[in-house]
Amino acid sequence: MLGLMQDRALLISDLIEYAALYHGDTEVVSRSIEGPIHRTNYRELRQRSKQLANALTALGVKFGDRVGTLAWNGYRHMELYYGISGMGAVLHTINPRLFPEQITYIANHAEDQFLFFDLTFAPLIEKLAPTMKTVKAFVAMTDRAHMPKINTGSVDLLCYEDLIDSHSADFEWPQFDEKTASSLCYTSGTTGNPKGVLYSHRSTVLHSFCVCSRDGLGLSSADSALIIVPLFHANAWGIPYAAAMCGAKLVLPGAQLDGKSVYELTRDEKCNFSAGVPTVWLMFFGYVDQNPHLDVKKDIVLERLVIGGSAAPRAMIERFHNDFGAYVVHAWGMTEMSPLGTTGNLLKRHADLPIEKRFDIQQKQGRAVFGVDMKITDDQGKELPRDGHAFGNLKVRGPWITKGYFKGEGGQVLDEQGYFDTGDVATLDPEGYMQITDRSKDVIKSGGEWISSIDVENAAVGHPAVQEAAVIGVFHAKWQERPLLIVIKKPGQDVTGPELIKFLESRIAKWWLPDDVVFVDELPHTATGKLLKTKLREQFKDHKLPTADAAE
Amino acid sequence: MLGLMQDRALLISDLIEYAALYHGDTEVVSRSIEGPIHRTNYRELRQRSKQLANALTALGVKFGDRVGTLAWNGYRHMELYYGISGMGAVLHTINPRLFPEQITYIANHAEDQFLFFDLTFAPLIEKLAPTMKTVKAFVAMTDRAHMPKINTGSVDLLCYEDLIDSHSADFEWPQFDEKTASSLCYTSGTTGNPKGVLYSHRSTVLHSFCVCSRDGLGLSSADSALIIVPLFHANAWGIPYAAAMCGAKLVLPGAQLDGKSVYELTRDEKCNFSAGVPTVWLMFFGYVDQNPHLDVKKDIVLERLVIGGSAAPRAMIERFHNDFGAYVVHAWGMTEMSPLGTTGNLLKRHADLPIEKRFDIQQKQGRAVFGVDMKITDDQGKELPRDGHAFGNLKVRGPWITKGYFKGEGGQVLDEQGYFDTGDVATLDPEGYMQITDRSKDVIKSGGEWISSIDVENAAVGHPAVQEAAVIGVFHAKWQERPLLIVIKKPGQDVTGPELIKFLESRIAKWWLPDDVVFVDELPHTATGKLLKTKLREQFKDHKLPTADAAE
Repeated sequence: MLGLMQDRALLISDLIEYAALYHGDTEVVSRSIEGPIHRTNYRELRQRSKQLANALTALGVKFGDRVGTLAWNGYRHMELYYGISGMGAVLHTINPRLFPEQITYIANHAEDQFLFFDLTFAPLIEKLAPTMKTVKAFVAMTDRAHMPKINTGSVDLLCYEDLIDSHSADFEWPQFDEKTASSLCYTSGTTGNPKGVLYSHRSTVLHSFCVCSRDGLGLSSADSALIIVPLFHANAWGIPYAAAMCGAKLVLPGAQLDGKSVYELTRDEKCNFSAGVPTVWLMFFGYVDQNPHLDVKKDIVLERLVIGGSAAPRAMIERFHNDFGAYVVHAWGMTEMSPLGTTGNLLKRHADLPIEKRFDIQQKQGRAVFGVDMKITDDQGKELPRDGHAFGNLKVRGPWITKGYFKGEGGQVLDEQGYFDTGDVATLDPEGYMQITDRSKDVIKSGGEWISSIDVENAAVGHPAVQEAAVIGVFHAKWQERPLLIVIKKPGQDVTGPELIKFLESRIAKWWLPDDVVFVDELPHTATGKLLKTKLREQFKDHKLPTADAAE
Repeated sequence: MLGLMQDRALLISDLIEYAALYHGDTEVVSRSIEGPIHRTNYRELRQRSKQLANALTALGVKFGDRVGTLAWNGYRHMELYYGISGMGAVLHTINPRLFPEQITYIANHAEDQFLFFDLTFAPLIEKLAPTMKTVKAFVAMTDRAHMPKINTGSVDLLCYEDLIDSHSADFEWPQFDEKTASSLCYTSGTTGNPKGVLYSHRSTVLHSFCVCSRDGLGLSSADSALIIVPLFHANAWGIPYAAAMCGAKLVLPGAQLDGKSVYELTRDEKCNFSAGVPTVWLMFFGYVDQNPHLDVKKDIVLERLVIGGSAAPRAMIERFHNDFGAYVVHAWGMTEMSPLGTTGNLLKRHADLPIEKRFDIQQKQGRAVFGVDMKITDDQGKELPRDGHAFGNLKVRGPWITKGYFKGEGGQVLDEQGYFDTGDVATLDPEGYMQITDRSKDVIKSGGEWISSIDVENAAVGHPAVQEAAVIGVFHAKWQERPLLIVIKKPGQDVTGPELIKFLESRIAKWWLPDDVVFVDELPHTATGKLLKTKLREQFKDHKLPTADAAE
């Protein structure tokens, strides 16, 4: 028997309609590519999204068509978020930090019909235009006066403001199945081609509820939210949608993420909430340190910072607490998860803990939010205990988690219980806090036991002579794999392999100690700055460990 | 094109599973019917809900079967909430304050297969047992030692704890369509038979997200939540579900809602959040006033009180602010709405207003939450302006609002745009705050303009000699209807009709002034204490207004 509640679909257009009606005056502030700070609000954002929807309809964009963006965080990108998805087309945000050939690959794979770009990317568009097979026009996100002088060959180059201006805001958002595709984002895997994650209206609205819940990210109408995490990456953690749901003021930093720009924007817009990767905050701290005359306590009113993307350093968590009175919500998720999976909120019972113990908890990646089922398993799929020690493959399930990639790439990705394998290796403690210990491809499997490459690397970089360290597993006849430590020394510093092993002895389990140490001049990285361990494994696949003979 | 997100259904069983896993130790505290305070937690609540699901399965309860409850707020009622809905049956909460014949009517109309009752209601069960046509057994919510000695005729009388004890907690919640019916609650209309509102798993989980959002009720794991609003009434405003979603501590006051009991429970369990009707808080204030030795500031740590059901008096909003430092969230909703429609949170921009202005805003019923579309219309369905002055029929739409009553009673209830007519008359101001001005049946339609009976009543009770006042419309040849004021005088006080009209002249619009005043000794009320205006209109239908002759 079905209930008798209304069959209203959860649609992204409802978010902007709600914001326009109940938070119409609430500001959306952008640092524009052209230069000055731009101020608009949710009422105007709805209006221009509707003008855009009319313009796209006139251009021939149909239900389900993909429309690409190469853009920073700004109001026009927000209009694309709502205009494209609202009309039933699919917003395809492209990460401009990918290699150019990857951008071509995904624009063609997605079959983008139009491609909107910020002026920063005009040279890139000119270069890539001939390689893009489905794009009917490129749209420069600017006004007539700032149009770039580029050659896009036989494909039209349009002006965003002209496009908008020529259409009315008289557009009624269509109603349709809430499982309809709304947006598309490709993951930048370290191997193979990027794969597309196709979100739905339903997943997006449900995820927004999570962001607005107090135990999620607690976003609310009381917040002035600085969104540093890019709109081209995993929906900027869902905040562009959730901010409309609750009516938070949005502050969008555009292309300028240097310490000075972020400091000034945070100060001028009285931002109390922010979300971003650790790197930006390192630059922010750098700016503060270089300018001791700043009245930081008066200028900066940050209360909650969501930090994810990579692990937040403990020193960052501590400094935000000590110097700014701000709480770092350490969060974890992934493009395939919309992206929120865990949030590092403290529990009521932690209030009385000494501050160091609270930092210990904050350093973990947090607890699963409602809506995300989470488990760790061994390689046979057997669930491992939630004891804070056992680490296993981290798997997740829920209504805003992918069930497969666009066009079936990658094949079947769920286990028998419907869980998606995140590719991360993690522990879960008895209170539910999760901590990433490694990537599953990087974990070293030694005699049936697992060694976390990241833990060994973190211990190694603690040595004063080590600049960067990588640990990989290499073949060992007896143990299958044993760890090899690969190190770049700091300029002018010296250390030997045995000295490093000696240093590690008091810091990690004895059987985790690397069997060998190699010194190199550089380590390979991905386009987004991550260690490229596949390349290292290839490079050292014939490396003979000094312990190998003994085992044979 | 559909998105590629997982097809996970939103189910009530997910709520208790999440709470047990991530907030297993969080307490659920009940004042038991047997006497002492009872303490359990979410882990045990899940376990016993599963034992109950096994027991009900063994008793023959099938998917979609209705199971009734006549019970106060306590842990066993919570187990019924999760056990019954979780297994795919329908929890039918019955309001024990209804007239006995209404209880019989709805139990038969719902075709309840089993009826669970608190000991308080043993005499009522004995009396009604012969009238209940579908009930296969009555289950006393107690242990063997406290079983009531009542005669239920040929129908079995079972013991709750025996039932639970004889079954294991080994029960896997079934997966099914999220639109499946989960619970049923009958409205106590002033006319005709009660009508059933049939909630779904989907509507319940979505509504829970709303309760947990900061701009909704902001319920969180940091809260100790005293749930005064009964579990038998409109899902106790959804808090039994939302509390599990976020892991809030639950405090359930059982049958004792007198000032002393509520004060002590609030104090002992350090409740910072509560939800209930104004009446209970009047008793609470009464207890405080009679016991000046109490250290109220130390004892009571209330921060947020959700008050709804009927309008929160301004004096109550002010007193909670002044004496307790607590914020009254004035909320509005109805059984047909799961029930949340509006919440009276202040906006960021209101922080700098003088306190009296903030009280003015708090006195309104609040703003629509995300998920509830709201409009006011005239009798022709034309939408009226959101100017804070125009008042019209309040209509709502959304995924947790009913589209029709159980078994089709009442027929088609939605307008062409899918809106449900609440039966309330309200204003909407430019900021989105809604204020109820009347029931649509009670509003007086005078020459095409509407007069709010409630506003006139509120003005009349401001006169020192008036104990209670009712205003109804009576026939008028020229104006269709004109207001008649019906008054009970305070004992030992006197006032004349002309004096009252004189008193009102400075308080309401001239054309709202009643055309006549009648004094009576008593006014008719419903079982739940509301003025029964249908009866008054019947009683005064031939009343001849002194102004009627002039019009003819």
